Amino acid sequence: MEGLAKIEDLGKPRVVIVGGGFGGLELVKALRHVDMQVILIDKQNYHTFQPLLYQVATAGLSPDDIVSPFRKIMDEQANFYFRLAEVQRVDTVAQVVETSIGLVKYDYLVVATGATTNYFGDEQMQRNSIAIKSVEDAIELRNTVLSNFEKALQLGDEEQMNSLLDFVIVGGGPTGVEIAGALSELRKHVFPKDYKELDFKQMDIHLVQSGPSLLKGMSEEAAQKSLEYLRNYGVNVILDRRVKSYDGYTVTLNTGETLITRTLIWAAGVAGAPIDGIRKESLLKGGRYQVDEYNRVAGYENIFALGDIAAMITPATPEGHPMVAQPAIQQGHLLGQNFARLLAKQPLQPFHYHDKGAMATIGRNLAVADVKLMGKDYRTQGFLAWLMWTFVHLISLIGFRNRLFVLLSWTFSYFSNDKGLRYIIGKRREPMPVEATTEKAIV
Amino acid sequence: MEGLAKIEDLGKPRVVIVGGGFGGLELVKALRHVDMQVILIDKQNYHTFQPLLYQVATAGLSPDDIVSPFRKIMDEQANFYFRLAEVQRVDTVAQVVETSIGLVKYDYLVVATGATTNYFGDEQMQRNSIAIKSVEDAIELRNTVLSNFEKALQLGDEEQMNSLLDFVIVGGGPTGVEIAGALSELRKHVFPKDYKELDFKQMDIHLVQSGPSLLKGMSEEAAQKSLEYLRNYGVNVILDRRVKSYDGYTVTLNTGETLITRTLIWAAGVAGAPIDGIRKESLLKGGRYQVDEYNRVAGYENIFALGDIAAMITPATPEGHPMVAQPAIQQGHLLGQNFARLLAKQPLQPFHYHDKGAMATIGRNLAVADVKLMGKDYRTQGFLAWLMWTFVHLISLIGFRNRLFVLLSWTFSYFSNDKGLRYIIGKRREPMPVEATTEKAIV
Repeated sequence: MEGLAKIEDLGKPRVVIVGGGFGGLELVKALRHVDMQVILIDKQNYHTFQPLLYQVATAGLSPDDIVSPFRKIMDEQANFYFRLAEVQRVDTVAQVVETSIGLVKYDYLVVATGATTNYFGDEQMQRNSIAIKSVEDAIELRNTVLSNFEKALQLGDEEQMNSLLDFVIVGGGPTGVEIAGALSELRKHVFPKDYKELDFKQMDIHLVQSGPSLLKGMSEEAAQKSLEYLRNYGVNVILDRRVKSYDGYTVTLNTGETLITRTLIWAAGVAGAPIDGIRKESLLKGGRYQVDEYNRVAGYENIFALGDIAAMITPATPEGHPMVAQPAIQQGHLLGQNFARLLAKQPLQPFHYHDKGAMATIGRNLAVADVKLMGKDYRTQGFLAWLMWTFVHLISLIGFRNRLFVLLSWTFSYFSNDKGLRYIIGKRREPMPVEATTEKAIV
Repeated sequence: MEGLAKIEDLGKPRVVIVGGGFGGLELVKALRHVDMQVILIDKQNYHTFQPLLYQVATAGLSPDDIVSPFRKIMDEQANFYFRLAEVQRVDTVAQVVETSIGLVKYDYLVVATGATTNYFGDEQMQRNSIAIKSVEDAIELRNTVLSNFEKALQLGDEEQMNSLLDFVIVGGGPTGVEIAGALSELRKHVFPKDYKELDFKQMDIHLVQSGPSLLKGMSEEAAQKSLEYLRNYGVNVILDRRVKSYDGYTVTLNTGETLITRTLIWAAGVAGAPIDGIRKESLLKGGRYQVDEYNRVAGYENIFALGDIAAMITPATPEGHPMVAQPAIQQGHLLGQNFARLLAKQPLQPFHYHDKGAMATIGRNLAVADVKLMGKDYRTQGFLAWLMWTFVHLISLIGFRNRLFVLLSWTFSYFSNDKGLRYIIGKRREPMPVEATTEKAIV
């Protein structure tokens, strides 16, 4: 689009925020009483609570319970403007963002585009695997799992059937661990009732992790216990292996070993989602912008980046902050206050990360948690960690409705061992026909 | 598919039911303790509670709260088999159903395919309008409405903008009336907060009804009051007019009058969804099979039809029963019992319809109800009718979870006047570009 997008000019300093994830959203809220025009651009009209996407993918939660429309969240914020658009590039000289709905002028630009799945250049993997970065991804995975079982009912060939029943998850971070745990619970409690004609002893869940332990970045206790929990659940955790290739049917590991599956879940890496037009010199490896302690992108006075897309390199954080929700939220909050200081010509406050720790859940009553409380480390695994995980995720959700509905869904699941949202609505992936003969229905 | 679909042969009489709507589902349940193999074929893996689809379309309910996976509903029913498949035709001589997953043999066949939208042969209308017969339809309508407003923000030309803000609903039956009411409530309470930059005085809701009154088949009081309620809500109810054509932008009425809209909701008619291979002589106008009082399709001993697709012509019902949930449910229930009688070589019971009446809701505290209780007619409009409507729909939903979640959603909406599920996820319809120049973003 060539012309200017139609947005009132308030004659006030205008900050354009690209991306309404944890960081962007927190920034918008922090600017509530700041005398600026706040424009949020996102390609979705809702915020996604990413930590619970894996539960949407495994029929435990409705997509509706973990998303919140931006316009609804900010109903009361007078200086807030939202535009549903894709950002194509930035012209930093003219100070305009080029979007699918036209040009948007800015005085200050904040890049909060987060991260996308990193396939490390493997296009075949990108085509054949499923990621869990968006609600649409999670819905697609749910639909695909269920469709696979419906199809498996028609197969007689054992390898063919197994290719539909088996799952390979690549990446032993929180997402990989959590999805492996959730699939195990479905295998134990739900699928055998739904598909009495299938033998779920044949359903294998493989979790491939390139390093020697799970949950890199968490404590050794967390890594050990999560491994123990998953193995008790019957997950085949394969450590110290990399996936070399996947053609939609055969997974080949770096050792030459192979696994057969129609469904490979790729949770092995993320990379920043940079925007064209911002100087390449500021882009570090992993697609993150180098920012100073005020989240200013190196080389610019009026362009900021925060959250996953920002690498704040300091002596204490030589690799930047972890690409999770907390740094994004804290940076968004501080940046909002710093904009107020900027307008008042007061000195800006530098960012200090308050690391609250990390958690991952494996299943019912089972989680691992490394918590920092008033500077002290607490490590716990099992029921207490699970309670903490549950509590923290509930209060972090946006809005009373979503909290209540998730709490109720969890309460139902807890007492019934059921995950009831097992319908196929929306996009699904058709497994590639492998051999025409074996796909035929047989008696 | 040529071969037989893979389904165990139990050596018992096998009934194949095509379609898991109200009738098919009730029949499956009624066959719980009957010594038959019960096979349900549906192209979705879930039952849809159609009466509340309009609330999904207007962001009031989550699609997840009005659907129930067949396998979950029938978890405990040992003689139940489900197949996700599309039925292509029936070979009544060989007694097989040809489906997308292969041939399925039957001893008894029950056609419970319901009804589809009837465009009366108008292909242009079919292409350009949106119906509300399935969850996917309802999601598409919700996404389209929201996308329209996002797009309207970029338009300066008044007619163009109005084409996105205005809605034309064709058909003054319950669906048309309910969707018109729900859109009015959104216009009054929700959209002005979400889209402060748009002028909702410009949003027109037109309801076009071919006859002289709304809610044909209900009492005169119901027709009168629903008209009054809708007009008080600011709906432009146009009686005694037919829509002659719609090109995606201009609606032309039979009088030559025109309306401009990008979104025409077609709720003007349904027709049965017959299956190829069943004798055409049994098919009456409206695409319904002529059945006897045991729901047997004319000309067959072992083929039955029930619900919307069945026309049980008797002196008392010269046009068959109304195409709504109640006759389908009652026929499904009786047919299940009759199968037991059939196997026991006992005489079958003929069907008698217990008409419980009809209802439609317009909005908060406003509904119309014609109720039959112990043979007596009660007619009520307003708050009491609304309470009855609410209660009846709640208890008719399947499963405790859906009932609780719908009750909570309604309670939230009632006290907040809000309908919170305003996200664009899944399929949406892009409005056709009308003139390239006017679609351009302008300052």
